[in-house]
Formats: sequence, C-alpha cells, structure tokens
Amino acid sequence: MQTPWEYRYANRTSRMGSSVIRELLKLTEQPDLISFGGGLPAPEVFPLEEFKKACIYVLDNFGAQSLQYSTTEGYRPLREMISRHTHRYSVSVTPENILITSGSQQALDFIGRVFINQGDHIVVESPTYLGALQAWNAYGAQYIAVPSDENGMIVDKLEEALRIGPKFIYVLPNFQNPSGTTLSLERRTKLVDLADRYGVPIVEDDPYGQLRFEGEHLPSLVWLDSKRRGDNGSYTGNVIYLSTFSKILAPGVRLAWVIAPEQVIRKLVQSKQAADLHSATFNQMVAFEVGKGGFLDEHVKLIRETYKQRRDLMIEMMAETFPAEVHATKPLGGMFLWGILPEWMDASELIKLAIERKVAYVPGGSFHPNGGGKNTMRINFSYSKPELIREGITRLGTLLKEQVAAHKG
Amino acid sequence: MQTPWEYRYANRTSRMGSSVIRELLKLTEQPDLISFGGGLPAPEVFPLEEFKKACIYVLDNFGAQSLQYSTTEGYRPLREMISRHTHRYSVSVTPENILITSGSQQALDFIGRVFINQGDHIVVESPTYLGALQAWNAYGAQYIAVPSDENGMIVDKLEEALRIGPKFIYVLPNFQNPSGTTLSLERRTKLVDLADRYGVPIVEDDPYGQLRFEGEHLPSLVWLDSKRRGDNGSYTGNVIYLSTFSKILAPGVRLAWVIAPEQVIRKLVQSKQAADLHSATFNQMVAFEVGKGGFLDEHVKLIRETYKQRRDLMIEMMAETFPAEVHATKPLGGMFLWGILPEWMDASELIKLAIERKVAYVPGGSFHPNGGGKNTMRINFSYSKPELIREGITRLGTLLKEQVAAHKG
Repeated sequence: MQTPWEYRYANRTSRMGSSVIRELLKLTEQPDLISFGGGLPAPEVFPLEEFKKACIYVLDNFGAQSLQYSTTEGYRPLREMISRHTHRYSVSVTPENILITSGSQQALDFIGRVFINQGDHIVVESPTYLGALQAWNAYGAQYIAVPSDENGMIVDKLEEALRIGPKFIYVLPNFQNPSGTTLSLERRTKLVDLADRYGVPIVEDDPYGQLRFEGEHLPSLVWLDSKRRGDNGSYTGNVIYLSTFSKILAPGVRLAWVIAPEQVIRKLVQSKQAADLHSATFNQMVAFEVGKGGFLDEHVKLIRETYKQRRDLMIEMMAETFPAEVHATKPLGGMFLWGILPEWMDASELIKLAIERKVAYVPGGSFHPNGGGKNTMRINFSYSKPELIREGITRLGTLLKEQVAAHKG
Repeated sequence: MQTPWEYRYANRTSRMGSSVIRELLKLTEQPDLISFGGGLPAPEVFPLEEFKKACIYVLDNFGAQSLQYSTTEGYRPLREMISRHTHRYSVSVTPENILITSGSQQALDFIGRVFINQGDHIVVESPTYLGALQAWNAYGAQYIAVPSDENGMIVDKLEEALRIGPKFIYVLPNFQNPSGTTLSLERRTKLVDLADRYGVPIVEDDPYGQLRFEGEHLPSLVWLDSKRRGDNGSYTGNVIYLSTFSKILAPGVRLAWVIAPEQVIRKLVQSKQAADLHSATFNQMVAFEVGKGGFLDEHVKLIRETYKQRRDLMIEMMAETFPAEVHATKPLGGMFLWGILPEWMDASELIKLAIERKVAYVPGGSFHPNGGGKNTMRINFSYSKPELIREGITRLGTLLKEQVAAHKG
C-alpha cells in the first residue's frame, strides 16, 4: 500500500540507492556459505577483556558523565591521544585539528555535505571505495576515475584529471579497499606536489594504515603535505585525513577521526551538530581507556599477525586451486585481495554460481564509478578462519577451473 | 591562515550555521554559573548499575558479536522490544516499521535528506525545536510557522498553512521543546484529520512522551492516524513518529528510533547506509539488556518523580522571586518551562546580564523560525539540583525585578 510520503521524496533520494555490498551480504547470510564478500575484521582479535575492563572503569570512575550529552568535537582526552599518536608520525596536529566521527563513513558523508555541490567532479582511483561513492552520490557528485596498477593510482594520469577542475582528490594510499594496493612513495610525493600546484585538495582515507604485514611504513599524504608547508603546531594544509578505530579496536563502537585544518574542522562540526549532535560519550571514553596505556599499539601486532597468516594461506590456496588464467594481488597489509579474471569472464555473473556453491566475494564492477572492472573481484581475507579460507578458496577455485575449461571447450 | 579547502565550500554550507544553543552552552561552562540553558537530563537518574550489569552481560554472553559491524536497520531484538512497547499504546507496528538511529537528531537529518528539496515549505509550531530547524536548514527548507498557545499548535490556523502546499507538518505534541505545552486531544484529532484531508503527512517528534507528571496520557498522532486507517499489523499511514532512549535511559549512548511505513523506513535505511552504516552495535545490545525485563518502565517513574519535584520547586521559586510582569507555563511533563517577559523586554539582551549574574537560560527568539518571541525564554528544570534551582531562580528573579523597576523608572 502506498503512503502519502511516497509522493514526497526529494530529488536526491533517487540518487541514494542501496549499498550493493550490503544487499549482497544479506544474500550470503546462509550459515553454510563461506563469505569473502564482507569487509569485516576478524572477531577473534577483538580485545573483549580490555574492553570490559574499560567499560567498568569508565562507569566506576566517571559515572553519569559517561552517559550524558557531550561536545560535538569529541571527548578531549581521546582527541589528545590521537594527536599524540599522529605526532609520532611527525605530523603537526593539535586536538583542534581533530573531530571524532561515528565511523569513517560519517566523515565521508560530512565531506560531501560541506564541499560537494550538485555536479562537482571528484577525482577517484578506479577501483575505489564504494562507501565514499555512496556517501557522495547523494550530493550529486560526478567522478573522474584515474586508473591504478599494483602501485596504486597511476599519478602520471592525474594531471589530465586535475585540469578538469575537480573539487578534490580522494585516495586510499595503504592496502586500498578494494584492490589491496599501496601507493608508492614516489607517487605519493608526486601526488601531493601536483595537488598543490593545481590548488586541488586531497581526502586521504587511511583505515588500514596500521595493518602493514611487511615492508616499511610509507609516509602519509598529510605528512608529506605538512612537511612541504613547514607546518609547526596546528595543521593548515591541503589534506583531510581519515582514520578509524574500526580496524584497530572494533567497528561495533562506531568511532573514527578526521584530521584537517581547524577551519575545516569547524565546518565539519557544524555538520555533526545537525547530523547527530555528537558520537556516543560512553564509547569515546571507553576507547580512550582501552587505548591510553599504549595497549592498542601492542594489540595491532596481534591483528597484523592474524591477518598476515590468513593472507598467506589464501594466496597459498589460490596457487593450489585457481586456474593459471586467474591472478590475484599480494597486498602488503589490510584486509583485501583483488582477483583478476580473464577478460571474457564476468564476476557479477559468476557470483550467482559461486553463491550456489556456497562461497561469495564482491564483483569488482561496483567499485568502478565510471564502469569497467567486470572481470575483477574483491576477496576479503581478514574475517574467515583458516579452515574456512581453505574450503572457500577450494570451492571458488573449482568453479573457476570449470569455467575456464568450459570456455576452452 | 587559509587552506585550499576554504575556497571550496558547497552552497549549502552557508546555511548550516552553528547551533545557537550549543554555542551559548559553551559560554555557560563556568563552574559557578547555574545554567537552565541546556536540555540535559538529570545525571542523578541515569541507571549506572543496570547499565554496568548490561555491559558485562553483553560482553560475557555475546562477546565479539557486540563489537562487530551489524545491520543498518538496527539490532532486531531491540526493534522487537520497541514494537511490543508501541503495541501497548495500540499502534500497529512491526519491526519492519522501525529504524534505530543515533539519537533523534539523526532521524531529523534523514527526514531532511529523504524529503526536503531546496525551497520546500515545512509547517512548524512557533516556537519549535531548534535541532529540527538546524537539520533542515542545510537542505534548504523554508518554514510556515503556525502560532501556538498553552494547548500547543493553534490547529484552527493550520488549514491556511496547508493550502500553501507544505512538504510535511512537524509537531511535538507532548511537553514541547521549547514551550513545555501539550497539544490537546481535540487538536490532535483535528490535526490528523486535516493532514489527511490535504494529503500532507506529519512528523511527530515525541522525546518526552513518557515523562508525564500528571493528567492522562493522550493518544499519539501516529495512533490516531493508525485508527483512522484501520491498520492491522504493519503501519502504513501518514505519520513518521520519533522517540528516543536519551530521556528514559541516557543520551550519551545516542540511541533513538523512527516508526514509519515500511517503504519510508527503507528510504531512511539508505540514508543511514551512506551516513554512518549503523548505530553502535554494543550500545544497542546494552540498551536492549537494560530494557528487556521491563526495567525502563519502572525507571521512568523515578525520572518523572525527580523532574516533577524540580518543576514544582522552580514554579514555587518563580512565584516567590519573579516580578508579577513575568509569566511562566506549568508544563505537565518533560524538561522545560517557558517564560514570557513583558513586551518591552528582550531576552537575548537580558541573557548577557544574566550570565554576569551567573545564571543562564535560552532566549526564545531562536525557536521562532520566522522571527518573534523576543520576550520569551526557555528554562530547563530537569538538570539542576534543587539547591541550584533555588539559587538560580532567585538570581534570575532579582535581575528581572531590577529590570522591571528600572523600566517603570
């Protein structure tokens, strides 16, 4: 039955659309299906005991304050902790450069709200993070897709995009979602230089930066920009940097942060006042208590070790069961592998057969804002336990081999 | 120093503005100032022990699930509990009619996102809730202000407003923020009838409905509408109903809910996917554990008793210390009194003197979207302890008497 509301949707509502991934994940909720589709952290690494201790500590020591309304900017000790943490990477930031958000998704939404006019162009990597596209579609964004390879965005092709006059550049330099690739240092430097030259700012989305399994930590774009400018104290530069507690603590607390120039933080704070007043006081205080003694620094080592084992096992199983025609990236960290099928294969068709075989991934096409990538797939290695990785990759490998064999006829 | 971002704000950014109230509240953070300005619940009534028990129970029994990502719609047992609770008031709702949001502010924002085009007219009471105006200003809403008296919106003046063709009607029927007034049953019935006749839907915002100190519970607009339609099972009607855990449990957990027809819920879910994926899993599970055994039903009795005592004391102190020229409403519930000053007095000027005297309220002008109300003030009675109510109202009364005396010359 129709309700009067249905005749009253705003124009933007037609652009909102449901998340392809979240709808796909509903299909994969059958208990015997092995899903590499989600982007879930391993529940085995959530620090339940420390979290419980922190809940009790906060309630015993702060009592009602932890359940009361609080400031939009976020719990100050938590912002100070993030500021100190960021200083370790030599970026000059103060708590006034930091806003706590309810997950990075909220930060992406606020960036859309504050900066995107209908029709504005945003430079993105192709493929890129679907959640950002979903957030910005509602504001009428258009995308200039710069192709990427195993070293991330092909920055040599960026200049052409910058001459179109985009609002900003969106990039995930570390272990990108979906492709798992890492932007090389040379490209990072060139990206920051080019952005500055053309006066186009950068949104750097870094949820996985601390989850590096091997190789050297590469400087963030916000650090490179901060150095260029010779910032000392407050950050005044060209980059809005996003990171999150979802991958180093737990996503169910919905806590992330934005680093940006103070003026930008003030605009984002206005967005947050209108959007949800503030993130949950209790969760912020608990996250601070869990993190304050350096526990999270130790804890990420366990996460890295766990995910590295799963990545290695997945690659090993792929080598064993996948046909030679299918390739996959070897990410240096993060949560995702990127599978590349033969050109003639369509991952969005194959997924139907895969679900019948009780295994799932996300077809790569959805991550390409302007089309393409039909023969690609995102495969999550962080969530499934080793025995499920073995079994699931074997199921997928068997299916892929059959497809290749049938094609060769 | 300017950053490149500052040249790139979207058009809507100029409409966002900072919340007058939240900025005022910053001024009133001096420790010796008695503030009746905020809209804070009494921290003394937060159920800390039950909350702690629930945290431990959830972590011991659900473990990692409580810290993992979860569905956008909200934790199903919590939605079922809200659905059962709503059934007690005879409204036909299923969990599919319910979305969990991060506070009612988020629900207001999503309503703006899904329904408001630039320039759309929204019918509001005058005065009305500032958070709604702030949420909808960003979407370019204009307001048709229908005046109200001690029985809420003067519904006889609504028909004129409906002929302008508004997108929807926004109303807070119970112990309204800011005025404390309650919409009479006769007006509720007429409002629902008129809305249906003109085909204009209603947003019913009901954060305080359970905080009634005296008199009979009046049926909600969603109930009246549901009856008219003869709904049975799922709700399909004309009303989007909002309520919250902020006033019956604690605001620092940021949990509220929307009741709406299923099609509308699906659109709001799309908004939430883009805005923050879902509300904190842990908080939803804890709120369910606190509420499931009927604890909150008992707990609201304590809140009602506490707030009633504070309201009574405030009215008593006003009778004692305020000049005869100043009047205040006697709300039947909720958290706010509404003061009406003589016409020549400007509450937004007076507040400066009041802050010097270490007492604060919110000037009423800000609650009138199209101007007016300069001689009105919102006074919160829920937050301050009795001794502070005595002292604060005395300070305010002394100031008001001086002003009246000076005016009389």
